[in-house]
Amino acid sequence: MTNVSLEQIQSPADLRLLDRRELKEIAAQLREFVLQSVSKTGGHLSSNLGTVELTIALHSVFDTPDDRIVWDVGHQSYPHKILTGRREQMAHLRQKGGISGFPKRSESEYDAFGTAHSSTSISAVLGMAVASRNAGLAHRQHIAVIGDGAMTAGMAFEALNNAGVTPDVNVLVVLNDNDMSISPPVGALNHYLARLLSGRFYATAKNVGRAVLQHVPPVLELARRFEGHAKGMVSPATLFEELGFNYVGPIDGHDLDALIPTLENLRALGGLQFLHVVTKKGQGYKLAEADPVLYHGPGKFDPDVGILKPKAPARQTFTQVFGRWLCDMAEADSRLYGITPAMREGSGMVEFEQRFPLRYIDAGIAEQHAVTFAAGLACEGEKPVVAIYSTFLQRGYDQLIHDVALQNLDVTFALDRAGIVGADGATHAGNYDIAFLRCVPNMVVAAPSDENEARLLLSTCYQHPGPASVRYPRGAGCGAEVQAGLDTVEIGKAVVRRQGKKIAILAFGTLLGAALQAADAIDATVVDMRFVKPLDGALLQSLADTHAAFVTVEEAAIMGGAGSAVLEFLSQQGIERPVLQLGLPDRFIDHGEQAAILSELGLDGPGLAHSIRQRYAALLPPRLAAVVKQST
Amino acid sequence: MTNVSLEQIQSPADLRLLDRRELKEIAAQLREFVLQSVSKTGGHLSSNLGTVELTIALHSVFDTPDDRIVWDVGHQSYPHKILTGRREQMAHLRQKGGISGFPKRSESEYDAFGTAHSSTSISAVLGMAVASRNAGLAHRQHIAVIGDGAMTAGMAFEALNNAGVTPDVNVLVVLNDNDMSISPPVGALNHYLARLLSGRFYATAKNVGRAVLQHVPPVLELARRFEGHAKGMVSPATLFEELGFNYVGPIDGHDLDALIPTLENLRALGGLQFLHVVTKKGQGYKLAEADPVLYHGPGKFDPDVGILKPKAPARQTFTQVFGRWLCDMAEADSRLYGITPAMREGSGMVEFEQRFPLRYIDAGIAEQHAVTFAAGLACEGEKPVVAIYSTFLQRGYDQLIHDVALQNLDVTFALDRAGIVGADGATHAGNYDIAFLRCVPNMVVAAPSDENEARLLLSTCYQHPGPASVRYPRGAGCGAEVQAGLDTVEIGKAVVRRQGKKIAILAFGTLLGAALQAADAIDATVVDMRFVKPLDGALLQSLADTHAAFVTVEEAAIMGGAGSAVLEFLSQQGIERPVLQLGLPDRFIDHGEQAAILSELGLDGPGLAHSIRQRYAALLPPRLAAVVKQST
Repeated sequence: MTNVSLEQIQSPADLRLLDRRELKEIAAQLREFVLQSVSKTGGHLSSNLGTVELTIALHSVFDTPDDRIVWDVGHQSYPHKILTGRREQMAHLRQKGGISGFPKRSESEYDAFGTAHSSTSISAVLGMAVASRNAGLAHRQHIAVIGDGAMTAGMAFEALNNAGVTPDVNVLVVLNDNDMSISPPVGALNHYLARLLSGRFYATAKNVGRAVLQHVPPVLELARRFEGHAKGMVSPATLFEELGFNYVGPIDGHDLDALIPTLENLRALGGLQFLHVVTKKGQGYKLAEADPVLYHGPGKFDPDVGILKPKAPARQTFTQVFGRWLCDMAEADSRLYGITPAMREGSGMVEFEQRFPLRYIDAGIAEQHAVTFAAGLACEGEKPVVAIYSTFLQRGYDQLIHDVALQNLDVTFALDRAGIVGADGATHAGNYDIAFLRCVPNMVVAAPSDENEARLLLSTCYQHPGPASVRYPRGAGCGAEVQAGLDTVEIGKAVVRRQGKKIAILAFGTLLGAALQAADAIDATVVDMRFVKPLDGALLQSLADTHAAFVTVEEAAIMGGAGSAVLEFLSQQGIERPVLQLGLPDRFIDHGEQAAILSELGLDGPGLAHSIRQRYAALLPPRLAAVVKQST
Repeated sequence: MTNVSLEQIQSPADLRLLDRRELKEIAAQLREFVLQSVSKTGGHLSSNLGTVELTIALHSVFDTPDDRIVWDVGHQSYPHKILTGRREQMAHLRQKGGISGFPKRSESEYDAFGTAHSSTSISAVLGMAVASRNAGLAHRQHIAVIGDGAMTAGMAFEALNNAGVTPDVNVLVVLNDNDMSISPPVGALNHYLARLLSGRFYATAKNVGRAVLQHVPPVLELARRFEGHAKGMVSPATLFEELGFNYVGPIDGHDLDALIPTLENLRALGGLQFLHVVTKKGQGYKLAEADPVLYHGPGKFDPDVGILKPKAPARQTFTQVFGRWLCDMAEADSRLYGITPAMREGSGMVEFEQRFPLRYIDAGIAEQHAVTFAAGLACEGEKPVVAIYSTFLQRGYDQLIHDVALQNLDVTFALDRAGIVGADGATHAGNYDIAFLRCVPNMVVAAPSDENEARLLLSTCYQHPGPASVRYPRGAGCGAEVQAGLDTVEIGKAVVRRQGKKIAILAFGTLLGAALQAADAIDATVVDMRFVKPLDGALLQSLADTHAAFVTVEEAAIMGGAGSAVLEFLSQQGIERPVLQLGLPDRFIDHGEQAAILSELGLDGPGLAHSIRQRYAALLPPRLAAVVKQST
């Protein structure tokens, strides 16, 4: 059809040499490339098929990398990566040593800001825009591309609110509105956006977007709109205009003939601009269009066939264990509520929502609100369970301290994705929760060692009449059979799992399996500690009487972690025993396969044994200590 | 004038027996009581003078405590406390053993939710409202009283957004709009509210509030508004209507004749109601009306005379040291930006704003945005300083990890109010920052021991090309003379301040003075550690060679704190020396005078000496150890 080819595009500068027809051809090739590439590596698909034209339009209109583009959340940035010199590296996306699934400053000068957690983009570009303003770079543009979901987070509102009173900055917010096909929208804002699309706004805006913007001198047209705005909202202003932005749209985000002239006009105008773009998740791949959720973040699949019904996995995930427990406990106790900040699928709450709709709350991408909402429920004698990824609880930390723990309210936190998260990498690391939770008074911090323990400790923390948290990792455990029932255990009580000599390994969480493996090699005692807080002091005391040294093992940051809790206890009691702390080191850990990362960090069975031998060689009988020389 | 008297009001039930004229008399007496009471104890004044009529109206219309009222931020709740049985206890407001300056669930059944940090109220009442709905309590009302400042925080938006799609709940948001007199409003939302007040909305709403609501059957009138809303915004809808609320107002918040009928109507309507009330900070006390900021949170004063120009305090506060440093460094380095989440006065940035307006950013009550905004600035090579209270950084924790530390951006955090905060109590405790910061990779955590060290460490952390934090306490230090200049010290390097024997006291922060005092009594070595992270490992190693035991001292939670960092280091190095960790215990600490609290916790000189003697008696020569028996 044409002689342009995606391979020619080494950088956005190459795009700018093409005419509209050629750009459309590139769009077709880019969409096909995304589909083929993701089907081979796994990764995010639907959202990237939705941003093909928008990405081409942005890079051809704006002078990137001098102009800054920040992709909110960032999982829709594959087309951006492909067009900015990383086409070939897509083959190793999200794999150890390969490129990240998110924008990353260290990866490319085109990645103006690293993203992954939602709703940071407007804040970041506003900061950049103020810097540019003060540096006299009046021409530089700063663009946040943000989805309608991300727009519901308070942080995005804070940034809009602040931008609205910041003079002389060039900030273009592109609202990528693609949630139409996913039900239900979780906030009033989504309803509002739907009204914008369906009502007369749409008709008017469509005219503006198509007819007017292309044929009238654009500055005049938009000046007219400004004037109307300044006169005090002659026409109904949109919410975004109320906050000080010039609202344009909605326009079709798959139509380069609409996108490019509109962006050119907005670029010429500068200032605070808000462009409402409508795209379709999965656009151009029928299977993904029909089920964008299924194709949101698939593993490998054959694009011609589509995703096959997954075989029942050999082992259930902790997420599934949680989902099952939640339903069972809700059946038994009508006071249970399940709360998620917009992670119904990821947190295993699909069945719960269906069965207990009145007690299911999707708070939106709104961790702060979700936690305090739970506190409000607890004030009324209800028993909320907040299901949240460890990394996202960082967003509700103040609310956990100030609204839940300080008032000693009965809220249970179920922390999924605690520890190494795999392909999502450092942005989603669940490494810090032990450190940031155990310093909070009144908090119970539990770390189950397997699937059955997860159920036991969920029940236990749920029945505890105060704030409590249960942390468990991404994916499957060791395959422990999960007992039915809603049994509880004693809070702060550990279990000796292996009786050995000299060395006592204290395992917090799912590294128990590796600890047991290591212990077999060196004949150590192994304890499933179950609780980071409160600690089983009595057991530690008696272990100290019978053992020469301790090892602590946890899939969490060593700094301030569970091992440090043990050190504090021993120190407070005046017990002098050496402690070897094994856990996550003090650095950000890149994406890669979970088990491989743990192994590399020395947190599998052989790794633990190796570290223990190195440190405690003198305590081991030659027969067991000698192995260290054979294996290294 | 009348025979009603404030003393008769033991609970809101007593209010409900009074007629309108009597309620007005109670309002006058209540206002006078608040003024007299606060002038004797100190506390918040302007905001409480502003809520006198609103409080009376709410408690006389609603069936408290069965209906729930949540006072956002809560420092405007003195009239509420007085009317709910705590009139006499106002004499001991914010004092040790006395009532709190904030609503507190343990204090009264009328305090439906403890508040202090901003913008939690709508989330909390929504949680309560969902509980009531599910319990079939259709009559129960849930009221959030929130200021226009608090409304700018993202959390409030998240809650509104979620409320808008929550069916069948009774939530009344009362927007207490009182910021008109304080300049400048920091967000676009404030501008919007001003437009609502000044434009035709005001005229219309005034008619609604006065004429219509009093004389037309209220349900009919409001039904008409609903209908307009349902038909698709025939009249320009307010932002709050866009989010699903029925907006009523603005009405005069000092006029019981407007407030009471309007609240009665809203109560009858139920559902999602939004009442915009305009009040005046300091209302009824001319001096406070004229300068509501000065009278925001005064100490004791004579109401007839007003607040006298404060004598120059003997010692400067750490806040002042920071403010001075900020200006000096900004003078020397044009890359410096000062960012505050709406705490210009509290963080000592008044002069900075005046001198460097383009580099001063008030982000609004928006800690999340403030931190990521700083990250955006740093991406452009600027050097932002985020001035934030320790307790409020909890709200920007995820952004600090995900946007700043992970990208290793050059952002300096100046943490005021670290440690014990005094009269504000547990809600504002700056106890946790060491634990939650030091687990984050790339972070530098500095704890200056006096005013001059604060300046040195601010310069040092500022010059460090990555994320760094400096924590300092509320109020004045020991009175150390602050050297001019912008000198830096070596990061991670401690200073031996006293050479002693056997015991080495490692002081992190301003308890250094107490540590030196204790050391004199027991002839211990004292080190000003300066940095929690990185630790001065070399010094610890050499101290271990020459001393038998360590003591760590910090004004921060022991759990996960600086002492634990020392334990981790020693453990990692295999150094076996006992460590006594002295710091803040694992419980929430109520309000009271800072020095008294520290003393009670054993964190003054004699207290430290006592604890050290108890633990290390065997290490001390009898001459020094014996003192323990004399002094206890």
